[in-house]
Amino acid sequence: MNHHELLRELQLKNNSKIVLLVADGLGGLPVTPGGQTELETAKTPHLDALATRGVLGLSTPVVPGITPGSGPGHLGLFGYDPLEFRIGRGVLEALGIDFDLGPDDVAIRGNFCTLDAAGKITDRRAGRIASDIGKKLCEKLDKIEIPGVEIFVRPVKEYRLVIVIRGKGLGGSVNDTDPQKTGVAPLVPQGRDAASQKTAEIAKQFLAKAKEVLKEDHPANFFTLRGIDKRPAIPTFEEVYGLKAGAIAVYPMYRGLARLVSMQVLDAGQTLDDQCARLEQAWNDFDFFFMHYKYTDSTGEDGNFAAKVDRIEQLDAVLPRITALKPDVLVVTGDHSTPSKLKSHSWHPVPTLLFADSCRPDACTKFGEASCLQGGLGQFQAKYLMTLAMAHAGRLEKYGA
Amino acid sequence: MNHHELLRELQLKNNSKIVLLVADGLGGLPVTPGGQTELETAKTPHLDALATRGVLGLSTPVVPGITPGSGPGHLGLFGYDPLEFRIGRGVLEALGIDFDLGPDDVAIRGNFCTLDAAGKITDRRAGRIASDIGKKLCEKLDKIEIPGVEIFVRPVKEYRLVIVIRGKGLGGSVNDTDPQKTGVAPLVPQGRDAASQKTAEIAKQFLAKAKEVLKEDHPANFFTLRGIDKRPAIPTFEEVYGLKAGAIAVYPMYRGLARLVSMQVLDAGQTLDDQCARLEQAWNDFDFFFMHYKYTDSTGEDGNFAAKVDRIEQLDAVLPRITALKPDVLVVTGDHSTPSKLKSHSWHPVPTLLFADSCRPDACTKFGEASCLQGGLGQFQAKYLMTLAMAHAGRLEKYGA
Repeated sequence: MNHHELLRELQLKNNSKIVLLVADGLGGLPVTPGGQTELETAKTPHLDALATRGVLGLSTPVVPGITPGSGPGHLGLFGYDPLEFRIGRGVLEALGIDFDLGPDDVAIRGNFCTLDAAGKITDRRAGRIASDIGKKLCEKLDKIEIPGVEIFVRPVKEYRLVIVIRGKGLGGSVNDTDPQKTGVAPLVPQGRDAASQKTAEIAKQFLAKAKEVLKEDHPANFFTLRGIDKRPAIPTFEEVYGLKAGAIAVYPMYRGLARLVSMQVLDAGQTLDDQCARLEQAWNDFDFFFMHYKYTDSTGEDGNFAAKVDRIEQLDAVLPRITALKPDVLVVTGDHSTPSKLKSHSWHPVPTLLFADSCRPDACTKFGEASCLQGGLGQFQAKYLMTLAMAHAGRLEKYGA
Repeated sequence: MNHHELLRELQLKNNSKIVLLVADGLGGLPVTPGGQTELETAKTPHLDALATRGVLGLSTPVVPGITPGSGPGHLGLFGYDPLEFRIGRGVLEALGIDFDLGPDDVAIRGNFCTLDAAGKITDRRAGRIASDIGKKLCEKLDKIEIPGVEIFVRPVKEYRLVIVIRGKGLGGSVNDTDPQKTGVAPLVPQGRDAASQKTAEIAKQFLAKAKEVLKEDHPANFFTLRGIDKRPAIPTFEEVYGLKAGAIAVYPMYRGLARLVSMQVLDAGQTLDDQCARLEQAWNDFDFFFMHYKYTDSTGEDGNFAAKVDRIEQLDAVLPRITALKPDVLVVTGDHSTPSKLKSHSWHPVPTLLFADSCRPDACTKFGEASCLQGGLGQFQAKYLMTLAMAHAGRLEKYGA
């Protein structure tokens, strides 16, 4: 029995509130020998006060040494094993533009490209056309109709687009048509099973019509298809935990990931203050809130140590608005580390703080990586964080007699 | 999806070098209450300097409480789940005498025994004959020919020998012929499937000829067959990690274990200095080096605390030759603990040091068991050590977007 089956069996209802506050890419590294990480450098009086009364630990998003993208990172935090549930590239791209993907949708990443008179690719990115050109081309392509299905074409940025084919019985196992080189024609879509063959046939019809529509639009006179996939069949948050969950995330990707586990996505505004206001307003309507803060990751990706420190301090500053609501369980963590030293996501375990009345306190008085290493949660797999939150919320029955 | 499938998918190539230095049986125990372990007692300035800048932890070779032999211990360090990949006794015995086992080989441990006139065993170890007698008998047996296969007979020590049957389509699932008692005849080999029945038939023919060859060689006038098995079907190091790996091990068993995962076995000489010289010479030819040091285990097995301390200090003394090569990742660990207090392998977790530029430093300044318990790697399964090494070498792509 895996832990999801256990949770379905043991979940209880009560009036408790759980807040999962995700500071994206929270974990870091010192940049000088003997130095401190971003989180350790930041002045975080409110987080430190919570750390003193709560319990700390370090979470491993996937397995030791594996660096997760945002998809696996968040699935782990939501309690889904990221090696069991995989999110295809096309699906992530669709989530990233806030497209509300349904279970009958096949999502595809598209790249505008340039074809020569012989139909061979001369530029796999169509000269990196401007976003407004891509947008206009997508509007034209969106008008194409294929009997029996709905097709949505949406711009992403520059030469990138998303195509969604919606229809019953379509498979998501179709090859990329991008040949990964120039001087050859795009590949022909082929399904790897009967249902996917149906998808491939529709894709072929769509591509034929699209070629006609774009024929005068040099350099973006065609496009390739990549990362074709369907949403993973994923149990809902409500099924697994019995929680009514609301997501308060500014960036589309994270709203999309929340939608993937069937959280209700709320209007988050643009700032932390907007997010807190939404949390206050929605407080009585949900059992669980996922609140996402992007800038600890983006500053890490930029390699900007000082800016990441600032962003952490800004997050600390709004914490009193969250604690004023008296959540029964408040978790502060990240979906992975993004050390500004590495300018990228990393595999280092993620500082995690859990605050609840039922915590067994550890000796930690500061929220930081070194302190978390001494924390009462130890080093644990991210997928168990929700189980711990449920326990501290009094929402789990005893297992066995 | 298991972590091997993940690694195959995520592996990247670059110019980094990884060194895995295995001090066999490194972990220990204090012999007096409040005392220190062998590693803690040893003066190890170079290891301590690495510990200060790197990250420590304790590795669990199999699962908590399980004491591994050298086979499972090393498979774990090489990143292979020792509960998934099992090495038969015959195979291990063949590896231990440096026999280069191929995928078509069935390896068998033999014990010379004494038969009476009625064909019943009177001594299961043939009076523990001297090694030079065993050697001569093996030379005679090695001349036996069976049509359709090659047979190799090699001495091990005293009454012990190795038989290898090489041929297409031979199975490894054949019973021991040793009845585990005297006063009865050896058992008849029986295959548990069609391919193994073929092996059993060849074994029977070989035993019949052998009985004739040995009939005048009392007390060693026959032998029993044990631990019949083939090499496990094990993915190569190159497949799993994309690493070109060289093994620098003095003892045959460890060369054999390295060969099992398709490392290239280099001439290691006899001493640590020989091994370091080989490492220096081969530095540009490999991505990964496995260097094995036996004496921390053998002194532990002898129950000689002081000698084990000495051997650890000798290892520490050569470290500068390794670090002078500037490996991107240097791991120092053991395949299991061998506390001199217990005079045997044990289940205690193994002190582990990982040094790389991308380490998140912990507060540890000394390489020892108590210190490792506070280390940033925490307590982890040995099978993830290679994943961590790959991550620190920049050889793993992000998982998911």
